[in-house]
Amino acid sequence: MQITLGALVERLGGELIGDPSIVIRQIATLEKAGEGDLAFLANPKYRAALDGTTASAVIVDPKSAGLTERARIVTRDPYLYFARAAQWFNPLRRPPAGIHASAVVASALPESVSVGPNAVIGEGCEIGENTVIGPGCHVGDGVRIGPDGLLHAGVTIYADCVVGARAILHSGAVIGADGFGFARDSDKRWVKIPQIGRVVIGDDVEVGANTTIDRGALDDTVIGNGVKLDNLIQIAHNVHVDDDAIMAGLSGIAGSSRLGKRVMVAGQAGISGHLSVGDDIVVSAGTIITKTLDKPGVYTAMLPQMTHADWVKNVSHVRRLDGLADRVRELEKLLAEKNKENS
Amino acid sequence: MQITLGALVERLGGELIGDPSIVIRQIATLEKAGEGDLAFLANPKYRAALDGTTASAVIVDPKSAGLTERARIVTRDPYLYFARAAQWFNPLRRPPAGIHASAVVASALPESVSVGPNAVIGEGCEIGENTVIGPGCHVGDGVRIGPDGLLHAGVTIYADCVVGARAILHSGAVIGADGFGFARDSDKRWVKIPQIGRVVIGDDVEVGANTTIDRGALDDTVIGNGVKLDNLIQIAHNVHVDDDAIMAGLSGIAGSSRLGKRVMVAGQAGISGHLSVGDDIVVSAGTIITKTLDKPGVYTAMLPQMTHADWVKNVSHVRRLDGLADRVRELEKLLAEKNKENS
Amino acid sequence: MQITLGALVERLGGELIGDPSIVIRQIATLEKAGEGDLAFLANPKYRAALDGTTASAVIVDPKSAGLTERARIVTRDPYLYFARAAQWFNPLRRPPAGIHASAVVASALPESVSVGPNAVIGEGCEIGENTVIGPGCHVGDGVRIGPDGLLHAGVTIYADCVVGARAILHSGAVIGADGFGFARDSDKRWVKIPQIGRVVIGDDVEVGANTTIDRGALDDTVIGNGVKLDNLIQIAHNVHVDDDAIMAGLSGIAGSSRLGKRVMVAGQAGISGHLSVGDDIVVSAGTIITKTLDKPGVYTAMLPQMTHADWVKNVSHVRRLDGLADRVRELEKLLAEKNKENS
Repeated sequence: MQITLGALVERLGGELIGDPSIVIRQIATLEKAGEGDLAFLANPKYRAALDGTTASAVIVDPKSAGLTERARIVTRDPYLYFARAAQWFNPLRRPPAGIHASAVVASALPESVSVGPNAVIGEGCEIGENTVIGPGCHVGDGVRIGPDGLLHAGVTIYADCVVGARAILHSGAVIGADGFGFARDSDKRWVKIPQIGRVVIGDDVEVGANTTIDRGALDDTVIGNGVKLDNLIQIAHNVHVDDDAIMAGLSGIAGSSRLGKRVMVAGQAGISGHLSVGDDIVVSAGTIITKTLDKPGVYTAMLPQMTHADWVKNVSHVRRLDGLADRVRELEKLLAEKNKENS
Repeated sequence: MQITLGALVERLGGELIGDPSIVIRQIATLEKAGEGDLAFLANPKYRAALDGTTASAVIVDPKSAGLTERARIVTRDPYLYFARAAQWFNPLRRPPAGIHASAVVASALPESVSVGPNAVIGEGCEIGENTVIGPGCHVGDGVRIGPDGLLHAGVTIYADCVVGARAILHSGAVIGADGFGFARDSDKRWVKIPQIGRVVIGDDVEVGANTTIDRGALDDTVIGNGVKLDNLIQIAHNVHVDDDAIMAGLSGIAGSSRLGKRVMVAGQAGISGHLSVGDDIVVSAGTIITKTLDKPGVYTAMLPQMTHADWVKNVSHVRRLDGLADRVRELEKLLAEKNKENS
Repeated sequence: MQITLGALVERLGGELIGDPSIVIRQIATLEKAGEGDLAFLANPKYRAALDGTTASAVIVDPKSAGLTERARIVTRDPYLYFARAAQWFNPLRRPPAGIHASAVVASALPESVSVGPNAVIGEGCEIGENTVIGPGCHVGDGVRIGPDGLLHAGVTIYADCVVGARAILHSGAVIGADGFGFARDSDKRWVKIPQIGRVVIGDDVEVGANTTIDRGALDDTVIGNGVKLDNLIQIAHNVHVDDDAIMAGLSGIAGSSRLGKRVMVAGQAGISGHLSVGDDIVVSAGTIITKTLDKPGVYTAMLPQMTHADWVKNVSHVRRLDGLADRVRELEKLLAEKNKENS
């Protein structure tokens, strides 16, 4: 693909300083960019790299526009501009439409759909136009998937689940396995509660590799529009994740909890069950949320790393903090009494 | 399916207050239930929902029996009753018996077994009556699986592992991959230790999506009867999980540790290697257990969430707790000396 | 397989005390070993087991050589010796060369390669001699895999990734899914950044079951030689893991971070993004690293487990530690003033 700077700016906006006929073939980092590459400066702390770059052009914000003599596109948000330009140069790879001879398909599909080798599609499914079902995917009976979706190899969707338009599901993702629900009998054995809800996923959702989203017990598990889930995330039954929330790898949400709109959950963080995390809240890495949070802001709960020797010396005191607080209170009382005596 | 209240009580027990000829077709929550639905009140804090429900009947405990005029089944444990009723209305979906033409099967199987499209079964396997091997499952050579099992799509079982009766294994579960064992040579390179033990799983076990249970190094990894494992759990080599233990998502157990009977491990909790967690112990979410625990009870170790500003202000002190404790001790000494002087 | 003690020592070294014609057929633990088994004592705390063993021979270090009358191989590192002997008795199981009739292969492969049932290999791939592609594996277009590799059932490698020689990839591992990169538009919606880097994996790497390694955004994600990754690990885009580093289950590394040579990361630990962990550093279980670490050593950050009652009593004080430190400082000031008054 070859696009001139002039064509880029015409489509994506921004102010071009430099020759509009310069040809761009790919996006690259300032360090690696060469002839034909468009680089970007999104973070002012990398300004030094601007000097050394051999990119054909760079995307910069107004403050950095004067820092280079190279052809440049000036825009308020270079990172967003870079994302949009990168999408143009790198459209999603879609295999040609058609059903591979080795696939086992029991539903009628639009001609524009692509089904890869050894994929299995059950009965009564509805798959939207242009959607790609990758090799070895398993799509259960009665599943509905919107148009323009991309299921990479080896995605599993259990029966009756719903996925919206433009979904990107990565390999090993499992949508709709049974929620983890058991009653306990009088012998303390676990009695399985059938999970008869579904998973219902909105439009423009991306689900990372080996991430699991369980079906609801009685009602549905719901993932809103524009939600982005990284790899190895666990979403339990009856969770609601609102629009444009985002979760990083190895995080999880326990049953029936709700993430508000645009909530951001960092890696290895967890949300306990039956609670709610309000709109725009940010949960830091490794933090377990155990109470409903209403007020926007960043919430954090992890110990900072220490050398192991420092940890041994200091952290054991956490187990005796209540005693330490009592001793401080006692000292305050004694000193106050002494002051009274002396006065 | 249609079952009268009379038939339900005849089979599952409980005291019926109301018309035994009322027909039930499904289980639902108090909020969503309508004509033909059976709802339940398991937690007294949801009593308000009882007033608004339009369920045909409800399951309640004796204390709540007087709170509604609706047809009701009175039982000591409504949640357990709900589980049993829900199982009756929602039996596990099992595809018809028989081997799909696209499956590759190298062992003789009972006629009642169902093998889905593109599943692969090795040599010398024994599969019990009525067991379902879902699409795209991989069952290695010499594997034994009990009767009435349900392997959802895309389960992998490595060679020689054993799975008991009535197993439910969810998609992406991997049973019997190599344990993580290496010696270090004099150049500090890792030398693989062959993992020649098996995984041996008891009866009535459920394994969640993308959960991994590694085979033992020399002896076996053992999962007892009635154990329930959620999604994305890691069970390392030579672990023993005793009967009726239960683990939630993203939790893990390191090598050679043992979970006692009915142990409950919450989400994202971890058990270090070579230790033992006694019967009936509960491990809270996000808690790492680093020592053998004998005494029943709940064990917890995580920081409570704070605003990030509070965290910055407070948690840094953990690194200096030993010094703070010293300073309190010094103050106590000084004040005691002062008291002595003054007396 | 049958190997005499004499042949073992001839090939693997060590000093034999005992009859070199004794025949060994397998490796076993001291407790389970019997006639024909070779056991080992790697940890002096298990010396008691040496007395009770019925192994045909044992591997011991010089200090323990006098503790038994059995035939024994004396070596400085019995655990390493055990690893090497175990490898000899238990070579990796490799299915015969050839492409299964049900596999879908679009590249020319060496005759020594084995491709299992229902595996899918794209166009333009290069697979090295003797490499095994297990059943149901998906290898994308343009992938290169070195010789003598073993991909267990159900491994996925996305297009253009590179895997070195002698790789062992376990079931459900996903190599090369998109890194988790998004810009945010003015409506706070996420705009996907195409991930056009690759994953490049060195020689002698083992990747555990259901572990995910994401492709780079613009440049590559790089895994060095001899790296060992356990199950359910998340490696984000543009991470570099240097040679002989090792990570345990459920751990993760966020984007663009770097692990030095021989770094050891314990289970459920995490490394935040854009930082560096120096050579030979050890990160303890459940510890989140949030700053670059240069100095070798062990780093730890987790709370020790407590009974839940102790936790409730003590951990709430962490939220008020800054206040407690202030109060101690105030007491010190008051006492110092009092001392001044009195003097």
